[in-house]
Amino acid sequence: MIIGAVEAGGTKFVCGIGNEKGEVFERISFPTEQPEKTLAQVVEYFRDKQIESLGIGSFGPINIDRSSPQYGNVTTTPKPGWSNFPVLTELKKSIDVPIGWDTDVNAAALGEATWGAAQGSDSCLYYTIGTGVGVGVYAEGRMVHGLVHPEGGHVLTRRHPDDTYGGKCPYHGDCLEGMAAGPAIEARWKVKGSELPVDHPAWEMEAFYIGEALISAILLLSPKKIILGGGVMHQMQLFPLIRDHVRNGLKGYVASSALEEGGIDNYIVPPGLGDNAGLCGSIALGLRAYEESQQR
Amino acid sequence: MIIGAVEAGGTKFVCGIGNEKGEVFERISFPTEQPEKTLAQVVEYFRDKQIESLGIGSFGPINIDRSSPQYGNVTTTPKPGWSNFPVLTELKKSIDVPIGWDTDVNAAALGEATWGAAQGSDSCLYYTIGTGVGVGVYAEGRMVHGLVHPEGGHVLTRRHPDDTYGGKCPYHGDCLEGMAAGPAIEARWKVKGSELPVDHPAWEMEAFYIGEALISAILLLSPKKIILGGGVMHQMQLFPLIRDHVRNGLKGYVASSALEEGGIDNYIVPPGLGDNAGLCGSIALGLRAYEESQQR
Repeated sequence: MIIGAVEAGGTKFVCGIGNEKGEVFERISFPTEQPEKTLAQVVEYFRDKQIESLGIGSFGPINIDRSSPQYGNVTTTPKPGWSNFPVLTELKKSIDVPIGWDTDVNAAALGEATWGAAQGSDSCLYYTIGTGVGVGVYAEGRMVHGLVHPEGGHVLTRRHPDDTYGGKCPYHGDCLEGMAAGPAIEARWKVKGSELPVDHPAWEMEAFYIGEALISAILLLSPKKIILGGGVMHQMQLFPLIRDHVRNGLKGYVASSALEEGGIDNYIVPPGLGDNAGLCGSIALGLRAYEESQQR
Repeated sequence: MIIGAVEAGGTKFVCGIGNEKGEVFERISFPTEQPEKTLAQVVEYFRDKQIESLGIGSFGPINIDRSSPQYGNVTTTPKPGWSNFPVLTELKKSIDVPIGWDTDVNAAALGEATWGAAQGSDSCLYYTIGTGVGVGVYAEGRMVHGLVHPEGGHVLTRRHPDDTYGGKCPYHGDCLEGMAAGPAIEARWKVKGSELPVDHPAWEMEAFYIGEALISAILLLSPKKIILGGGVMHQMQLFPLIRDHVRNGLKGYVASSALEEGGIDNYIVPPGLGDNAGLCGSIALGLRAYEESQQR
């Protein structure tokens, strides 16, 4: 079957098609402009693709409450034209297949649990750490929505004892995103992270903040796998630093070999789907929407 | 129908019977001793009760992974005789009905979502704050288990700027439980919390720690309701202090009227089932086990 996928980002949209094995056949991308124009490009792309379902992983915040009249809207974004725009309703006017709709990071978590680093598991957390920090939550085989949807990039962590930087988040100052996203690294060290040497103390500090967030996430949610993606995580030297911080911080309290030396190397991992994590996540959303439509 | 319920605590066991409306008909309790003796008392209590199913909410850590050979065991407790004891297997020898098995706090969360403060909701967090801190997680209509089970009482929070107390947790020192459970209050102020006046600065500090944990939990998990029970939360003056701390800390980032002034009074709440929260939770587990047995 052919499944359509949209990665709806604040900067660019990626559209593609793939199949129920998570294979990606083709992809295109275009900049995010006014919603009418951008969504017309989405509709145009899929016009002759004969998709049987579609998945959309979107930048947020979005409304993912199926019982709400605003289901399918982007909600409170500062992005011109997109605030309260009914994305899903607009696309449904032209695309008559089952459509799955969720946050980009929930989609990525689902994709990784379907074909990637958490393949076959009913539980994982997906972090993207780049210009911002986002967290997708997949638990007991379901994407977690709750009241709005997870916004775990903004959890409050302790401060590194040697860090005098005040934090970059316009809401919370020194939350996880405010201390650990790419712009915070650049503001703290006066140089882009990609230009810092791999043995620079910046990375130990970065691992501290990510590790603190992961310790509390493990304790609260007990995920079976934690996947760390995004531009900052291309700095592969971070992985062993983060794993050490988490293991040392948990102090053996959660009794699982997955969290011990050896096990943790397969517990806190990069995306198994690599650069296709986002698009495959949307394919997985589309697949799930198709399966749900068959059960009705 | 008659549903049996067991609140298996480290200090005492409570057994009772109730029905599918969450009504409790009777209850007894006895001290927790060696497992063989205590479980024999459980079996004896239910012998003539004609229960159709049973729910057990247990102290932990416990194994709740149905695919594990150790499913139904208490695992790494320091309590003499209980470490690795196969509680569920032992009870099944004598009690031939469907049995639900989960952590005491997951059971309480389910009970509150079934008949209590989160009635009808598919999502809530249940905190018990007493001699320790435990957290039950109910999301998308399911108790969250994951790798082991949630241990959210031990999340790492920031320190209150005026607090010089080092923390009581033997594992993590100044984690939530180490700073906010009853023994921490007593160690910090040299007097039991129940003897401190309601306007004592201890309560603002207590609300700080609980509030910090809730802010991060809301951001990571987006629960639809947060229920705070346990002995410490009998100090009702804590509720407005905690709500203020959470609302101020979120800074309007999560756009939901439930988190705004007015809404939050119905969002962070005491258990709707009061002193029956634990036993009703176990009844809810038993009811769910019965329903699952009917679907097979």
